[in-house]
Amino acid sequence: MHSFADEEVEELLRQVALTSGYNQWLGARLVAAGNGQVEVELPVRAEMLQHHGFVHGGVIGALADNACAWAAASIAGDVVTNSYTLQLLAPTSASRLRVAGNVIKAGKRHVSVEARVFAERDAGDPKLTAVALASISVVSEGSAA
Amino acid sequence: MHSFADEEVEELLRQVALTSGYNQWLGARLVAAGNGQVEVELPVRAEMLQHHGFVHGGVIGALADNACAWAAASIAGDVVTNSYTLQLLAPTSASRLRVAGNVIKAGKRHVSVEARVFAERDAGDPKLTAVALASISVVSEGSAA
Amino acid sequence: MHSFADEEVEELLRQVALTSGYNQWLGARLVAAGNGQVEVELPVRAEMLQHHGFVHGGVIGALADNACAWAAASIAGDVVTNSYTLQLLAPTSASRLRVAGNVIKAGKRHVSVEARVFAERDAGDPKLTAVALASISVVSEGSAA
Amino acid sequence: MHSFADEEVEELLRQVALTSGYNQWLGARLVAAGNGQVEVELPVRAEMLQHHGFVHGGVIGALADNACAWAAASIAGDVVTNSYTLQLLAPTSASRLRVAGNVIKAGKRHVSVEARVFAERDAGDPKLTAVALASISVVSEGSAA
Repeated sequence: MHSFADEEVEELLRQVALTSGYNQWLGARLVAAGNGQVEVELPVRAEMLQHHGFVHGGVIGALADNACAWAAASIAGDVVTNSYTLQLLAPTSASRLRVAGNVIKAGKRHVSVEARVFAERDAGDPKLTAVALASISVVSEGSAA
Repeated sequence: MHSFADEEVEELLRQVALTSGYNQWLGARLVAAGNGQVEVELPVRAEMLQHHGFVHGGVIGALADNACAWAAASIAGDVVTNSYTLQLLAPTSASRLRVAGNVIKAGKRHVSVEARVFAERDAGDPKLTAVALASISVVSEGSAA
Repeated sequence: MHSFADEEVEELLRQVALTSGYNQWLGARLVAAGNGQVEVELPVRAEMLQHHGFVHGGVIGALADNACAWAAASIAGDVVTNSYTLQLLAPTSASRLRVAGNVIKAGKRHVSVEARVFAERDAGDPKLTAVALASISVVSEGSAA
Repeated sequence: MHSFADEEVEELLRQVALTSGYNQWLGARLVAAGNGQVEVELPVRAEMLQHHGFVHGGVIGALADNACAWAAASIAGDVVTNSYTLQLLAPTSASRLRVAGNVIKAGKRHVSVEARVFAERDAGDPKLTAVALASISVVSEGSAA
């Protein structure tokens, strides 16, 4: 179904990244990952909303950050987010978000990744809610911040 | 203690922003706010950590986003985050984070804000962990994304 | 050849944007523009290089900024760049750059646009050199910074 | 006059960075540099303007990029810009710009730097025109993009 999927990468992400305290709270589901691409979906809960009832930008940012880091990890192994720019394009009160992360270019030290966050809707196509551009650092022996 | 503090602004933020579902979960404490500046502290819990035991970038991003939006709101009223760039400067496993948000320039449509996130330490000065630069949109009658 | 091309948009950009002092100096050539997309090529001259002989990041940034603003203008009329994030992915000493700008989402107040800058090569495919994510503001009656 | 000035750093920047083709064209003047800080001023010429008569964002971006890279170089030696986010806060038709670059944090691999670009005015204080947040990579033996 997802031509980019790589079972080994998915298994590693499920064992390592998804079991952390934060991701346990977030409850994002890894749909597919591999070869520089990931797709993740997130059921939205009340504790993810800001005061107007929209999904909090921090949750959208975390989802985008995860997607970028995992897409980079799928081809570069151990990585850490260096920076990202998040544009919040439209507020959403959807009950389910979906994010696609795609590696733009993988260098020796940095991986450039973009993510697009969509709000699922009962009728009609998903609606683009946010976009991110990230620089992910490759963790190599002896490297540091 | 905080020369920028404005009690009306602080009261409004506590009644509106801090009571949202997400901020109830986050548990950040508003130390002071007013005149384009805010200081917020966050007790770190296990459900905020990533798989290496460091605070997840999404939590740091949300904290920075809050600080930028609230600093903007303290002088511009109703606002919404348009975009932000977050640089994660050093991983941290501190039990308490502190963020300072400062308005750089307030225009009619956009407020430019920076935030610096520090890890509190038992001994020594707080350690700079992340920095953000945000563009916050002023919500006015008839405006939209 | 470029399915997105719109002759009226191209004519307007050539008359307005391309005749400014800076763009006269830059010497970029509008290949095609319309419907939220643009393609621009730039012959590189010695006065565009930094001290290692690579194209200066400021030239690449200007090229990306132009591509983002023009792509936004092709569907939103008068616009002004609000912010952009530029990632310099690989240094280049190519004699010709090419940039593609694409609107990601057009809102009433902001247009989100991405640009990809490629170095042309004598042999082989163009090489991705830089990527940008921009937020372009729509200029409307009575609007201001 | 500038407490951060370091004559060796200034000499090196003048011999290396300022003699490149692009910086010869730009004509920026290094006011002071050292210890993670720089100040640069730029006389604006007609070939730096966009079609409304304001300084082109690409020139402002190049000036900010230079300031960030030079501030980083003043403490980290050979560096290359990895990415930067530029916010254009207000259009300017000033005949002289001034930029201050300041290192926020210097790590082993990345240096975080901010820059503020001001328009000089005949009367009154300089006006903040743009702000940038950059991630500058330290070039070390064997490193690559």
